[in-house]
Amino acid sequence: MAGEMTTSVSQRRTLDTAPFLVAARGGRPQRPPVWFMRQAGRSLPEYRDLRANTGMLRACLTPELASEITMQPVRRHAVDAAILFSDIVVPLAAAGVGLDIVAGTGPVIEHPVRTAADVAALPALDPAAVEPVAAAVRLLVRELGETPLIGFAGAPFTLASYLVEGGPSRHHERTKALMHSDPDTWHELAGRLARLALTFLRVQVDAGVDAVQLFDSWAGALSDRDYREFVLPHSAAVFDGLAALGVPRIHFGVGTGELLGSMAQAGADVVGVDWRTPLDAAARRIRAARPDRPVVVQGNLDPAVLFAGWPVVEREVRRVVDEGRAADGHVVNLGHGVLPETDPDVLTRVVRLVHSL
Amino acid sequence: MAGEMTTSVSQRRTLDTAPFLVAARGGRPQRPPVWFMRQAGRSLPEYRDLRANTGMLRACLTPELASEITMQPVRRHAVDAAILFSDIVVPLAAAGVGLDIVAGTGPVIEHPVRTAADVAALPALDPAAVEPVAAAVRLLVRELGETPLIGFAGAPFTLASYLVEGGPSRHHERTKALMHSDPDTWHELAGRLARLALTFLRVQVDAGVDAVQLFDSWAGALSDRDYREFVLPHSAAVFDGLAALGVPRIHFGVGTGELLGSMAQAGADVVGVDWRTPLDAAARRIRAARPDRPVVVQGNLDPAVLFAGWPVVEREVRRVVDEGRAADGHVVNLGHGVLPETDPDVLTRVVRLVHSL
Repeated sequence: MAGEMTTSVSQRRTLDTAPFLVAARGGRPQRPPVWFMRQAGRSLPEYRDLRANTGMLRACLTPELASEITMQPVRRHAVDAAILFSDIVVPLAAAGVGLDIVAGTGPVIEHPVRTAADVAALPALDPAAVEPVAAAVRLLVRELGETPLIGFAGAPFTLASYLVEGGPSRHHERTKALMHSDPDTWHELAGRLARLALTFLRVQVDAGVDAVQLFDSWAGALSDRDYREFVLPHSAAVFDGLAALGVPRIHFGVGTGELLGSMAQAGADVVGVDWRTPLDAAARRIRAARPDRPVVVQGNLDPAVLFAGWPVVEREVRRVVDEGRAADGHVVNLGHGVLPETDPDVLTRVVRLVHSL
Repeated sequence: MAGEMTTSVSQRRTLDTAPFLVAARGGRPQRPPVWFMRQAGRSLPEYRDLRANTGMLRACLTPELASEITMQPVRRHAVDAAILFSDIVVPLAAAGVGLDIVAGTGPVIEHPVRTAADVAALPALDPAAVEPVAAAVRLLVRELGETPLIGFAGAPFTLASYLVEGGPSRHHERTKALMHSDPDTWHELAGRLARLALTFLRVQVDAGVDAVQLFDSWAGALSDRDYREFVLPHSAAVFDGLAALGVPRIHFGVGTGELLGSMAQAGADVVGVDWRTPLDAAARRIRAARPDRPVVVQGNLDPAVLFAGWPVVEREVRRVVDEGRAADGHVVNLGHGVLPETDPDVLTRVVRLVHSL
């Protein structure tokens, strides 16, 4: 790894004026930066064509394919950042956890992880096992030009929920029961998943990504009390492990209005916010929780608004940009991923509008 | 209806000391009252037996069956209130909207409501069409003795989402698109659904229920801004229409941390809170939004905690009761419905514990 790191760090592009990176660092970009969670995906016909005969895991682990899918929304929308096409369970699969990503369902885990013995048997991630992801990053760094590339990983709680529940879950009851009834096993599990996420993100940074986003998709299912006791220390371990690498670190979950201060305290440079919390209110909460550092927010247009016709979209985009001025920095985005039925032309117009503001 | 109303109002029991009603009115009950959302349902083996060969809608519209299912948790757990066994789509079906409740999916609407013409064609609810529900209430009032009975209805936004999306929806994109792109049609739809909910609740009150709960299950998908513009006036119309009847009015939704003040302003006497917002914080938000009236909260034990073993359940129940002391009144409940896999014996122990506090 040491050799690889040297090589790749020397390959890192210098993108000092890229609006996304300037904003993510709390500086003043030339124009407001915008990208979309799930911008690479089912809303694009060219994506549906490419994925037609290829399973999700295979697509993520085929460098040319992952790279091409990542490029599609950059070419089409001229967004200010690419986000690596991958899935949060990719490092679990690469580590040897038996799972599949089932269309229409999501990840399905062959043997759910529910006991101390299950946790002890969880394999660690060998960086070599995600070499195809590093290869995709290297292809992208060459192709992207001045556009930054965001790497990502799933946060310990969200990964743990998939493992414990055996797949997507609405109520996370087994996961919550484990954390409350057997905190030692829970912390061992979350600690292992933090190391896995950190290894995966380091591979991506070493290969050249310019920023990282830690997705805690399901964290909004927790009270702040539970988040602080059972989750924050492990997400903080991931952020701490990345601190020396110098790339901006974004943290995002859905329905996290009560958690924004704690998620910022976990060590994020940029806190993603969904549409339920106005960005000015979010900025106040983050500043109160962490007064010593710039407050940079990401979000938070309701993805459902993209279905309401252009006059509504334009009004809402302008409002989001206005509310974002209450923060020290703002990366314009949706408050959740692009919905599959979204008209991609609307996304292109949103990018143009944001760039004009 | 006038004749019926006279009859039924004269039948209303006087339950001046029932802890649930005392607390719901902001008074000091002899003991903390407790009931559980979805207490009548799949967690009870005696319910699964009764429902084995009967569809959901049929069960709701068969007075003896609905009454017996409503009684089951009262007998088993000794909760402080019964809640009528029904479903929020029952008045839609009774009004003539083609729908079915599909096991494992939820309500499925035959012809989704998406245009002004669809809205104009929506039938109103004739109170006679829900006479089986009134009959169930009358049976229950006789059988319940000193235990109050809660009636309920779905709130306009949640009913509208089912109608517009055609069934349960994760993102409510068609519903949100309609409200933003065609506010006139939206307000006409929500207004009609408010009248339907009000008619349904009046039938239940006339037949003898002692309190009502308006479920806005999906309201948490909205920002406070959208809630106030598109939803609050219609939910307020339901609450206003009940004001003169003198029964406590409860309002509940999931993930509504940002909306609690607005939901209180809609006219609820009791605001239900999910587990994401501690009750003391919820009480402060409600008091700030509506300083002129007592703050009564309902909730908010995480239903997933019931799977974590008794020591955890006991600790969490005590914490919830403690945090509830910040309000002027507190009805102990879960922060969401009982999950189907819940061990009913744990619920019985929770009732005993709450009564000892």
